[in-house]
Amino acid sequence: MYLSKLFAKTRKQVSKDEKSINAQFLERAGFISKEMAGVYNYLPLGFMMLEKIIKIIREEMNVIGGQEILMPTLTSIKSYKQTKRDKLDILFRTKLHSGSEYILNQSHEEVITPLVKQFVHSYKDLPVYIYQIQTKFRNEPRARSGLLRGREFLMKDLYSFHVDEKDLDEYYKKVQKVYKEIFDRIGIGKDTHLVYASGGSFSKFSHEFQTLCETGEDEIYLCNSCKIGVNKEIINEQKVCPECGNNKLVVKKAIEVGNIFKLKTKFSDAFELTYKDKDGKDKPVVMGCYGIGPSRIMGTIVEVFHDKAGMILPESVAPYKNHIVILGSRNQEAGIRKIIDKLGGEDNCLIDDREISAGQKFADADLMGMPYRVVISDKTLKKNSVEIKKRSEDKTELVKINKL
Amino acid sequence: MYLSKLFAKTRKQVSKDEKSINAQFLERAGFISKEMAGVYNYLPLGFMMLEKIIKIIREEMNVIGGQEILMPTLTSIKSYKQTKRDKLDILFRTKLHSGSEYILNQSHEEVITPLVKQFVHSYKDLPVYIYQIQTKFRNEPRARSGLLRGREFLMKDLYSFHVDEKDLDEYYKKVQKVYKEIFDRIGIGKDTHLVYASGGSFSKFSHEFQTLCETGEDEIYLCNSCKIGVNKEIINEQKVCPECGNNKLVVKKAIEVGNIFKLKTKFSDAFELTYKDKDGKDKPVVMGCYGIGPSRIMGTIVEVFHDKAGMILPESVAPYKNHIVILGSRNQEAGIRKIIDKLGGEDNCLIDDREISAGQKFADADLMGMPYRVVISDKTLKKNSVEIKKRSEDKTELVKINKL
Repeated sequence: MYLSKLFAKTRKQVSKDEKSINAQFLERAGFISKEMAGVYNYLPLGFMMLEKIIKIIREEMNVIGGQEILMPTLTSIKSYKQTKRDKLDILFRTKLHSGSEYILNQSHEEVITPLVKQFVHSYKDLPVYIYQIQTKFRNEPRARSGLLRGREFLMKDLYSFHVDEKDLDEYYKKVQKVYKEIFDRIGIGKDTHLVYASGGSFSKFSHEFQTLCETGEDEIYLCNSCKIGVNKEIINEQKVCPECGNNKLVVKKAIEVGNIFKLKTKFSDAFELTYKDKDGKDKPVVMGCYGIGPSRIMGTIVEVFHDKAGMILPESVAPYKNHIVILGSRNQEAGIRKIIDKLGGEDNCLIDDREISAGQKFADADLMGMPYRVVISDKTLKKNSVEIKKRSEDKTELVKINKL
Repeated sequence: MYLSKLFAKTRKQVSKDEKSINAQFLERAGFISKEMAGVYNYLPLGFMMLEKIIKIIREEMNVIGGQEILMPTLTSIKSYKQTKRDKLDILFRTKLHSGSEYILNQSHEEVITPLVKQFVHSYKDLPVYIYQIQTKFRNEPRARSGLLRGREFLMKDLYSFHVDEKDLDEYYKKVQKVYKEIFDRIGIGKDTHLVYASGGSFSKFSHEFQTLCETGEDEIYLCNSCKIGVNKEIINEQKVCPECGNNKLVVKKAIEVGNIFKLKTKFSDAFELTYKDKDGKDKPVVMGCYGIGPSRIMGTIVEVFHDKAGMILPESVAPYKNHIVILGSRNQEAGIRKIIDKLGGEDNCLIDDREISAGQKFADADLMGMPYRVVISDKTLKKNSVEIKKRSEDKTELVKINKL
C-alpha cells in the first residue's frame, strides 16, 4: 500500500479527552478514529491489524474443534428474563414498532443455549464446541481506556457443551493451552499469565489471562515460581499460589486479555437444555464459555509495545512487515519496484512515497510501528543497497539489494 | 467436515410462520436458525456460505481501489439530525445511561462523511474509495421474507469521494462493471440485470441490480434487446428502454441484490465536507454510494436455485464442493480416506458418515445442495469406483477412483 493513496493519515495530535496510550497512538497513526467514548472506527491499517489478530484466534479455535457461527446482536428481553439478567446495568435496550423490548447482546449465553437446545437431544450429540467473532455492546458508564473498555467491541466467544463436568474439565484444560498459543502467536505470550479469578455464584474459580502492563486496570498476585497469578479480588489472607503453594507472590498491574468460565448448568438449567444419557435418563448439559476480545488485544499490544515515538508492533499482527521510506531517488522507479517485489510486494510493504520531508517520514515510520523500516535513497542505491532498521532496535544496517 | 460432528442438523419441518422459500430451505438444511422475524443465526454451513460470498465481494472491491474499514453500529442522533434523517421510521434507537440517544446505523453516510472530513482537505486527497462489510439494523414493520428483508443483516457499503461529477460518473461506471463481475462469480449473473430506479431528491436516476425471480418483491420492465431494466416505480407512460429506445419491454418479478447511488453533495453539504481546489477555492466533495447485501444474496441464491427436494448451490458459494455419502462399507476406512483426499480433503467435502438410512442420506444431500454428490458403497468400491451425480442434473456416473 502506498501512503500517498491511503485516505487515513497520521496526525500530530488527538483530542485531549483521549487519555489512554493505546487510543492516542492508534489515532495518531491513523489506525482508528473515535466515534464516541468506547466506540471507534477501524481505519484501513487498524482494520488490517484487527483481521490479523482474528485470523490467529480463528485458526486456533479450529484446532480444538470449534465450529464457527454468527449470532445476532438483537435478542428479546424475554430470554434475559429467563436467566434473570434482564436488569443488568450494562444492557443497551431498543424496541420494535410493536413496543416489544430487545437487548443488544453483551454476551451470547441467552442465544447459544436455546440454539443448541434445538439440535442436542442425546449423549450422542455431545460434546460440541461453537464459537463466533462478533460485536458486543455494553452500556459502560465510563469508557476511558481506548480499545481496552469499549461500549461496542469485537469478541470471540466460544461455548462448549458436555455430558458431565469431567468432560468439561478436560476441554477447559485444552482451551487454556490453545489460549496460551494464541497469545504467543500474537506476541504478548511472554507477558501473559493464567490467573485465578472469581467463579461467580456457580464455580469456585474462573480463569483469566492477564498481560502484565503498568497501565492495566487489574491487579494480580503473581507467583514467581510457577508464573500463575491470582486476581486481587479473590486473594486470601495467606496469599499463597493456588498451584504450588509458594508464598512469594508479587503484586503486578495487568490487562485482562481473555477469560474462561465453567458455566456448569447455570444456563442449561435456565433454558432446560438437557440430553438423554445411555440409560434414557434426562440430564442437564454442562457448559463452559471462553472469551477473547480482538479489539482489546489490539489495544493491549500498543500499551505493552511502544516507546515515546510510537508503536512497536509484533510481526504477526502488524498491518505490514516493512515500512519503506523513499527519499529523493526520483528517476529510480524500476529499481525501487524491484526492491519492493523482493520484500514481498505491496501486501507486505507500506510504502511512503509522499512528498514530505525525510524527518516527517521517519517520525511516521516510528509512530506507525511496522517491524522493519527500509530506507531507499540515492545514497543507498549508489551502493546497490537499502538501509534496514528494526523498529525495536536502534542500529541500522546497509543490506545489498541482491541479498534481500 | 463430517456430518456426525456437525452440531446443526437438518430438520424435516420449520415453523409455519416461515413462509419464504429461502428461509424454509436454509432452516431445514441447518444453514440458519431464526432468532426472530428478520433476525437469524448463521450456523456453520450458512456461515461458510456467507463467508464465500463476502470473499468474492471483498476481492472485487479491492480491484477498484476500495480501502476496507469497519464503522460502528452506534452513532449519535445528532449526526442524523444534521442530515434530517433522525425521524426515519426504520431507525432502531437506544440510550446511554446519561440519556443521550443513539441510533443503530441503518446505513453509514452519517459516519463516513464526518470521518472522511477528518482526512480530506485538498484536491490532492481525492478521489478515495472506502468500504466495509458490516451489520445494518432496520426496524422493519414486516420482515417476512427470510434473508431477503432483515431487521439485522449484513451489508457491503462502498462510498466514493470525488472532486467533481465527471470523476464520480467514471467511477460509477467502474462499479457497475465490477458489480456485474461479482454477480457472475456468485452464480446469479445470467439472471441479474442493471435497472434504472428513482434517484431520490438529488439525482435523476439511481441504479439497481435486480435478479429475475418469480418470488421477488420488485417488478421491473426488462428490455429484450439490451437487457437493461426499469423499475416499475419510475416507468413512464411510453414504457421505452432508457438505453436503446426499444419499446418492447417485458414485465418481470425480481429481487434487488445491489443498488448504486450518486449522492452528489447531499451528505457533504450536510457535514460541510469540502476540499480546496487547485486555485485554493473551497468546493463540496462529490459522493457516490454502492451497496450489496451478502445475507440477501444468500437468500436470493436459494430463491433462484432450488427444486422440490432442496437447494442447488453454485460451486463458488457452496460451503463444500462435494457431498460424500458413505453407504455400508464399514471396513474400508483407508480406501474412503484416500477418496476424500483425492477430492480435496475435508475442506472440500461434507461427509455423511451418520448411521442413518441411505434414503435419509440422499434426501439430506438434495436438501443441502452441494454441487456434487459422491456415493461410496461396497458396490462402488468393488468396481474401484465412486458414483458421482451433479446436484443440478439427474444422471449418475460411475468414476474410477484413480481418475478422480
